[in-house]
Amino acid sequence: MAMLRAAKHAMRALGSRAPDASPFARMLHASTGSKKIVGVFYKANEYASMNPKFVGCVEGSLGIRDWLESQGHQYIVTDDKEGPNCELEKHIPDMHVLITTPFHPAYVTEERIKKAKNLQLLLTAGIGSDHIDLKAAAAAGLTVAEVTGSNTVSVAEDELMRILILVRNFLPGYHQVINGDWNVAAIAYRAYDLEGKTVGTVGAGRIGKLLLQRLKPFNCNLLYHDRLKMEPDLEKEIGAKFEEDLDKMLPKCDVIVINTPLTEKTRGLFNKERIGKLKKGVLIVNNARGAIMDTQAVADACSSGHIAGYSGDVWNPQPAPKDHPWRYMPNHAMTPHISGTTIDGQLRYAAGTKDMLDRYFKGQDFPAQNYIVKEGKLASQYQ
Amino acid sequence: MAMLRAAKHAMRALGSRAPDASPFARMLHASTGSKKIVGVFYKANEYASMNPKFVGCVEGSLGIRDWLESQGHQYIVTDDKEGPNCELEKHIPDMHVLITTPFHPAYVTEERIKKAKNLQLLLTAGIGSDHIDLKAAAAAGLTVAEVTGSNTVSVAEDELMRILILVRNFLPGYHQVINGDWNVAAIAYRAYDLEGKTVGTVGAGRIGKLLLQRLKPFNCNLLYHDRLKMEPDLEKEIGAKFEEDLDKMLPKCDVIVINTPLTEKTRGLFNKERIGKLKKGVLIVNNARGAIMDTQAVADACSSGHIAGYSGDVWNPQPAPKDHPWRYMPNHAMTPHISGTTIDGQLRYAAGTKDMLDRYFKGQDFPAQNYIVKEGKLASQYQ
Repeated sequence: MAMLRAAKHAMRALGSRAPDASPFARMLHASTGSKKIVGVFYKANEYASMNPKFVGCVEGSLGIRDWLESQGHQYIVTDDKEGPNCELEKHIPDMHVLITTPFHPAYVTEERIKKAKNLQLLLTAGIGSDHIDLKAAAAAGLTVAEVTGSNTVSVAEDELMRILILVRNFLPGYHQVINGDWNVAAIAYRAYDLEGKTVGTVGAGRIGKLLLQRLKPFNCNLLYHDRLKMEPDLEKEIGAKFEEDLDKMLPKCDVIVINTPLTEKTRGLFNKERIGKLKKGVLIVNNARGAIMDTQAVADACSSGHIAGYSGDVWNPQPAPKDHPWRYMPNHAMTPHISGTTIDGQLRYAAGTKDMLDRYFKGQDFPAQNYIVKEGKLASQYQ
Repeated sequence: MAMLRAAKHAMRALGSRAPDASPFARMLHASTGSKKIVGVFYKANEYASMNPKFVGCVEGSLGIRDWLESQGHQYIVTDDKEGPNCELEKHIPDMHVLITTPFHPAYVTEERIKKAKNLQLLLTAGIGSDHIDLKAAAAAGLTVAEVTGSNTVSVAEDELMRILILVRNFLPGYHQVINGDWNVAAIAYRAYDLEGKTVGTVGAGRIGKLLLQRLKPFNCNLLYHDRLKMEPDLEKEIGAKFEEDLDKMLPKCDVIVINTPLTEKTRGLFNKERIGKLKKGVLIVNNARGAIMDTQAVADACSSGHIAGYSGDVWNPQPAPKDHPWRYMPNHAMTPHISGTTIDGQLRYAAGTKDMLDRYFKGQDFPAQNYIVKEGKLASQYQ
């Protein structure tokens, strides 16, 4: 199978020497020969040396520099990704592969794709490729792939933490401690058990399912909305009830967790109107993508108390500017985009990226679930 | 059975009219007639009216005032519990029942017990009666009882939240958000998944078991130390391994959770020497009692980094003074004593307290598991 694919790639490589009007022209480029690979990661500075496993930063460079260079490839790594004079822009015209992460995303616009004449492969070290104009990438014949599954556990754990932080009203207590106060009542009047509450997930893909599995022993009323109903056995094991109609599910929920990719259908899904129909005092956890929410509508609902707590690690845009309203709204438990870049997650997505590069060099297919754009087609969740 | 107990109580009541030199003299007092009941809770002030279910505060008074007064009992409620001129002291000489909570404990010393000539019953609305000198209470023939189980779920959920907050390095990210910063690396270099880590609980009673059940889907290596090994079926269901020797278990743990009552055996259990033998970078969660730890040894180990994170809601003493070192040590995630006083927990311990008062008035036994001191004997976990 791998041999067959390699042979096909080689034949395509030969074919690509001639001008080709096909929209998939660039896919036909050979994967052989020396490649220029650009990695865009966040910079760690003084933190880089604090943990030898910290491979997800510029300094760590996914731990693949020696391996790439020993094979004759060029590997440029930077965190400088914005504006016409940034380091990334210099390498766009001749790079073959761009690796980036959702934590410090290199935004791959149609304009950048047009400039990137040699580009063949866009790899997301992690999960979530909405920083790429996927339609433009598909039209240009690029391959886009993620390390599917690499940090699903990391994100699901983080979501459960955030649910508990909101339900239990953790942060006001913490603030009392560091401010020298002690006022149990000021915390307790709105601290609850998770047990017995209704928790609904918008999306029950890999992360949503892992979250539901972890929620099961908490004895909640678990609901999920998704394009697909789970197999009955899995649904029973997980103990969650399928809700076909999102807008019927949402008003039942004490806690809503967003586990859907950002697509044209989900952009701005939680606008003022939809938020207005949620239960008063609802708690929302969103580690999916910031743009699924209407930023100001969330801030307003937190201010009015309609949303009693909002926690997540995703923002629109990223990095969040200093004046982003979510930094200042009441009852938030926000962090920078971090849930998928634990040390454990980094080691997994570094290994997955290396594996895909290796397959790319050898002209082999990637694991099927990793493809976001393949042969001009978007993966189903992005359609 | 209840009838029989009632008859016995009535007989004892008759017997108690004559002077009685037995150390259990006060147990023999009648439970009939009008009683003076004192409740010591935290004051809620402006928060009291914010939630009609907020019964655990002075203003809420467990929601039993009308019920008590309609039966001719006197019910004094205060938060003023310290020093010779406090409100509590005024009522010590003639109160029959004292109700208090671990969140704002009325410390019942031997001296106070001696002054409390009418005292028969000490009820803890919640779990954990170490604010009472149990030996003195036993010697004086008092009954001490808790609402066992009333907030075990509340505490177990809170412990899992704290484990995740530490493992995932949540608070530095939150601080960045509120301070206008964005530095993923400064969080990620020491953020981990819980999956695959070794978590050990010191004590696997009601709360410890609930925690282990909730930890199971996280795919950790679960260990427990307790006086008793669980039944094989339960152990298998929970998926935790018994460790007979505490000092053999502790150095294996990435995360240690304290789930043991404060007794003479556990006071100061985590001293400098024992902490020194823990894994470097260990995370500790303690919602049990502050005095199980050597306060300064914990603060020093957090400062040196030997303990990489410490979270809990219990302090020694409570309320924690403004200069308590745990407020200022690095990598803490502390709150005031809150985990067992969620609204759900309050409703359960209020109901359990009312049930025990009702049984007391009727001369009936309490649920067996509620007794901490009964007929001069301490419950097994306090021996």
